[in-house]
Amino acid sequence: MTNQQVKITDVILRDAHQSLIATRLRTEDMLPGCAMLDDIGYWSLECWGGATFDACLRFLKEDPWERLGKLKAALPKTRLQMLVRGQNLLGYRHYSDDVVRAFIHKAAENGMDVFRIFDALNDVRNLRTAIEATKESGKHAQGTICYTTSPVHDVHSFVTLGKALANLGCDSIAIKDMAGLLMPYAASELVKALKDAVDLPLHLHSHATSGLAEMCQMKAIEAGCQHIDTALSSWSGGTSHPPTESLVIALKGSPYDTGLDLDKLQSANHYFAEIRKKYRRFESEFTGIDTQVHVFQVPGGMISNLANQLKERNALDRIGEVYKEIPEVRKDLGYPPLVTPTSQIVGTQAVLNVLTGKRYETITNEVKRYLQGGYGKAPAPVSAALQKKAIGDEDVMDCRPADLLKPELDKLRQEIGELAHNDEDVLSYAMFPEVGKLFLEQRAAGNLVPEPLVIESRADDAIKK
Amino acid sequence: MTNQQVKITDVILRDAHQSLIATRLRTEDMLPGCAMLDDIGYWSLECWGGATFDACLRFLKEDPWERLGKLKAALPKTRLQMLVRGQNLLGYRHYSDDVVRAFIHKAAENGMDVFRIFDALNDVRNLRTAIEATKESGKHAQGTICYTTSPVHDVHSFVTLGKALANLGCDSIAIKDMAGLLMPYAASELVKALKDAVDLPLHLHSHATSGLAEMCQMKAIEAGCQHIDTALSSWSGGTSHPPTESLVIALKGSPYDTGLDLDKLQSANHYFAEIRKKYRRFESEFTGIDTQVHVFQVPGGMISNLANQLKERNALDRIGEVYKEIPEVRKDLGYPPLVTPTSQIVGTQAVLNVLTGKRYETITNEVKRYLQGGYGKAPAPVSAALQKKAIGDEDVMDCRPADLLKPELDKLRQEIGELAHNDEDVLSYAMFPEVGKLFLEQRAAGNLVPEPLVIESRADDAIKK
Ligand SMILES: [Co+2]
Ligand SMILES: [Co+2]
Repeated sequence: MTNQQVKITDVILRDAHQSLIATRLRTEDMLPGCAMLDDIGYWSLECWGGATFDACLRFLKEDPWERLGKLKAALPKTRLQMLVRGQNLLGYRHYSDDVVRAFIHKAAENGMDVFRIFDALNDVRNLRTAIEATKESGKHAQGTICYTTSPVHDVHSFVTLGKALANLGCDSIAIKDMAGLLMPYAASELVKALKDAVDLPLHLHSHATSGLAEMCQMKAIEAGCQHIDTALSSWSGGTSHPPTESLVIALKGSPYDTGLDLDKLQSANHYFAEIRKKYRRFESEFTGIDTQVHVFQVPGGMISNLANQLKERNALDRIGEVYKEIPEVRKDLGYPPLVTPTSQIVGTQAVLNVLTGKRYETITNEVKRYLQGGYGKAPAPVSAALQKKAIGDEDVMDCRPADLLKPELDKLRQEIGELAHNDEDVLSYAMFPEVGKLFLEQRAAGNLVPEPLVIESRADDAIKK
Repeated sequence: MTNQQVKITDVILRDAHQSLIATRLRTEDMLPGCAMLDDIGYWSLECWGGATFDACLRFLKEDPWERLGKLKAALPKTRLQMLVRGQNLLGYRHYSDDVVRAFIHKAAENGMDVFRIFDALNDVRNLRTAIEATKESGKHAQGTICYTTSPVHDVHSFVTLGKALANLGCDSIAIKDMAGLLMPYAASELVKALKDAVDLPLHLHSHATSGLAEMCQMKAIEAGCQHIDTALSSWSGGTSHPPTESLVIALKGSPYDTGLDLDKLQSANHYFAEIRKKYRRFESEFTGIDTQVHVFQVPGGMISNLANQLKERNALDRIGEVYKEIPEVRKDLGYPPLVTPTSQIVGTQAVLNVLTGKRYETITNEVKRYLQGGYGKAPAPVSAALQKKAIGDEDVMDCRPADLLKPELDKLRQEIGELAHNDEDVLSYAMFPEVGKLFLEQRAAGNLVPEPLVIESRADDAIKK
């Protein structure tokens, strides 16, 4: 074990199935593999986040808090890690600070060890409360740099962000490359600059979408990044992450050797390879390499989303125009990184601009809220003309959006009433008001039925007729 | 354009479809994409080899020589490249020198520019005639190092081999990592040592099977390897090669920048992505990452082969024993690299050893021939006890196997007679006596019918009944 040893966070229990099978992996299929995972010696296992929480309530009819408890019991030796959307927590709006605190504290109490906290705009004000709450719980707060490219995003701006995260008390910093935009030599440069400026461990989370992630990992490691996110090989590649086993092999015998045992990885992988077969229904057709993000600067996941929007309007042939429009809208909005929710905000407006034939003839409510400062501070100044057109003379918030929110936990408790057995239930409702409430109602009625893994085939229907 | 610029050989027309759809890509589907490929600026396009030649005659009922001519016409600006099994050419036995010469000369005459020449045992005597014939034709002779790991394979042994290839007049040297065994830092060390010892361009051919090839490419490039084999992304990954576009992007702006245009690559890739859908029938179920080669030292392709052999004998449960037996057999045979035909020779004997319950109670004819020196010189001394048991006091050849062969081209011409319209036909027959002859007979009878792309479904059958 050298001081250059690389440590692995495996995302098999969160991002891998989120990226590959629409977040459908069930707790019952995770648990039998946990003893094997726990024995590997990972630095952490990512296992919770917005989409997993949502899918539990919406589709699997599992209590996400119960899942967390079961995973904690099954993984006593390994840190559990979650992804938190800063002040949005796992939901889609800004929560008041008391809700953020309560959520983080409860997650910690139920077994979460590492909180990876990000904001779509890289506005650190939206991370502050979550980081503080994590530290209050005595847990590991990981600040996140959402990686993107633009005229205002460069090594210098990311280093400034890294320093701000360190000043907020983060225990480590993650570079989150959600779209596979990172390039190997850029990764090397960024890691070196961050290492020089900030005395915190660096974690790299790079999706395999464009086929560059393995090379980025290699160059990041050589530049001093000692924490890498990977997925066991049977759940790796494509929109997921590079394979764990391959990186472990690649580093074997080098100063970066992870020391992880390939046989143990192979056994765990074998289990999860078998499990994946159950979820065939949720596999997407295309799982290969997609380098379009480097041509259009539009993330792969966003492209399929746009294609669907256009198809619904019989306008798929205009997707080329939309590709060209997206960078324009993004520029007008001050170059936000394209990640939930900014990818939807920019994408939908670009589609409207193309289909109406006149830029910003119609402006979505989300763009208006964005221009009011409702999501936080944009990386660069927004277009003054567009702002004027969208919100006229209305005030623009320059405070942290959550500063305008009163404490709301008590109100949420009252709203959900008897349906909640504890504060965890209240928080489930807070995160997903409709889906969470429905879940609690169904639970009360003894009527929680997970969506089926197999759709009855039409052949069967025919027989029944 | 710097002197460190990396040049790309795309394997889309040969190894990619050989690795992914059992070599079934038809000329009619290659040609419409050729103008796009030709415009990219590849160093070369690999497009011919043993399996493509065989599949043309056997399944597609295409004349492989005609394919070559059509590709040459459609790709006037780009070097065409082929893979030659040394003295075996494209077949499975050693040919006399006059056949080797005739084949290489005819291939050159029909448009081949680069001949990548390898021998399964890395016995350079088996490469000599093919290299000489290539030089006689004024074409590019690329000598090959079949990469493997064993107690007798190290940087030193590969450098010795590299020097021997240079002495034979090769224009470049390929490192052929057929099984995905190469590791990034080993690649770096090997390339550096070869660069120091031999003043020839180095080419890297590394299969993506185990998820390490991208990292190997990166480290090889940084060590001075300027020629990389890749496949357009829609035909990349898994048992094929790393994606072309990803490497081009990865190197952009670095001293290694390929200078290739991403839009052009994207267009060509789009064409081939569509084409691949026609060949669904030939896709294998598993196309992900497989790191087993690094656990068992048994190449992935060989594992599926062994599994089939065992399944036929109802002994799939003994595959673990076979994995353990393979390194033993390989050791007894002097550590041959595992590639056609040595992978079959070693694998089949290992299966026999396990199933009979007694090592070498039955010895295959191929192992006997191997121990007689019939394939060339093994990398290390073979087991004397096994040799004695297998061939008793019979002589062991220590000459080049082809030294014992008389000229045979005239005999082949006579055998095939009127069915051959030219020497190309004679050579097709020479390479694949049964399949080639059948092809020529069917051609004469006006009866060349390619195998169907779609199997009639049982549902259709049912309707017909
Ligand atoms: Co992710
Ligand atoms: Co190959």
